[in-house]
Amino acid sequence: MTTPKSKNITWAHSAIDHETRVRRNQHKGAVLWFTGLSSSGKSTLSREVERRLFERGCHCYILDGDNVRHGLNRDLGFSPADREENIRRIGEVANLMRDAGMITLTAFISPYRRDRRGCRDLVPDGGFIEIYCQCSLEECERRDPKGLYKKARAGQIPEFTGISAPYEAPEAAEIVVETDKLSIEESVAQIIAYLEAQRILQANGENGQDLERAVNS
Amino acid sequence: MTTPKSKNITWAHSAIDHETRVRRNQHKGAVLWFTGLSSSGKSTLSREVERRLFERGCHCYILDGDNVRHGLNRDLGFSPADREENIRRIGEVANLMRDAGMITLTAFISPYRRDRRGCRDLVPDGGFIEIYCQCSLEECERRDPKGLYKKARAGQIPEFTGISAPYEAPEAAEIVVETDKLSIEESVAQIIAYLEAQRILQANGENGQDLERAVNS
Repeated sequence: MTTPKSKNITWAHSAIDHETRVRRNQHKGAVLWFTGLSSSGKSTLSREVERRLFERGCHCYILDGDNVRHGLNRDLGFSPADREENIRRIGEVANLMRDAGMITLTAFISPYRRDRRGCRDLVPDGGFIEIYCQCSLEECERRDPKGLYKKARAGQIPEFTGISAPYEAPEAAEIVVETDKLSIEESVAQIIAYLEAQRILQANGENGQDLERAVNS
Repeated sequence: MTTPKSKNITWAHSAIDHETRVRRNQHKGAVLWFTGLSSSGKSTLSREVERRLFERGCHCYILDGDNVRHGLNRDLGFSPADREENIRRIGEVANLMRDAGMITLTAFISPYRRDRRGCRDLVPDGGFIEIYCQCSLEECERRDPKGLYKKARAGQIPEFTGISAPYEAPEAAEIVVETDKLSIEESVAQIIAYLEAQRILQANGENGQDLERAVNS
């Protein structure tokens, strides 16, 4: 690298392209978009996948209600327009982090197909992986760790997804995890296997050149 | 790590804390907030710093007009309220990326002290580093690579910072770079030296344990 002699030269683009980041990280950037009913296991599963990815040396991060609703999206309420904008911004941020080379996991109910489609459309090249945490409403209500379903049934929470507001199940999710049938261990394994098959992760024992070939193919 | 036998257990927090990320990355997460007049060198300098950081093995990413205005903030115009919201969201995203372990560089004029203060307040523990690209208006106008100052002087661009809208220079920026006096090379060296002195980066030749001690101190 040489430094220009002129003080006034400007670069048109970032100095580092995405492929260079992938080679450094030894994995691709991606958005793992978890969707499903409240209590369907999105948070639990995404955090366990994050942990497993980190242990494998991946750069990964979770966007969830804790770090988004009270920060970036703290100006948004729960009107239909605000809910849509909430998901839109999450999709944009997840895609920026993917562009930065990270595997970004998002854990939001995100009940509407159109909103999820909007987020998918931001992400190039198969980098958007929709993970449907499929769990019967009955099982979600049985779990109900925060008593939300109980309150929704009592009419104390308006427009509660699955009770008084719709959940539009994915029609073509990359991964459907039956969280009411599988253990966490089995669910994580299903997701990791998919990421390896798609060459987002290296399978254990592969070396960097293999991934580089996959990236460039 | 053991996997819980119950399918229904939930974790309260992310599986990976920030310090663990720092140990893995061998550098701290940080927000490098470049501010200054149009043509003061923010983009040029931030990109060169990004390149230098990447070459040292850091995880880094630039947020700028290219990847923010047309994405996350595409719903925002140029009214005073929208300009403020533009900077607020950039600060939130930069802080998320910092939390994820990255050194995030932002390159926006960000002319108002209050807005920059708001972004600073999001970031814990000295992780917000304001970098003032100090350059005389005369020199910025002389550079004017896109002819914006010329148009602003002709009244064709309303509320142009430095001409018809104020720029509130930082009063206590962590770093003041005199971009009208220093070469790019010198400017980059000044910033890197600061990051090493603050133990955000390891000085060359240090090992991981030194950084770990710095993190825990």
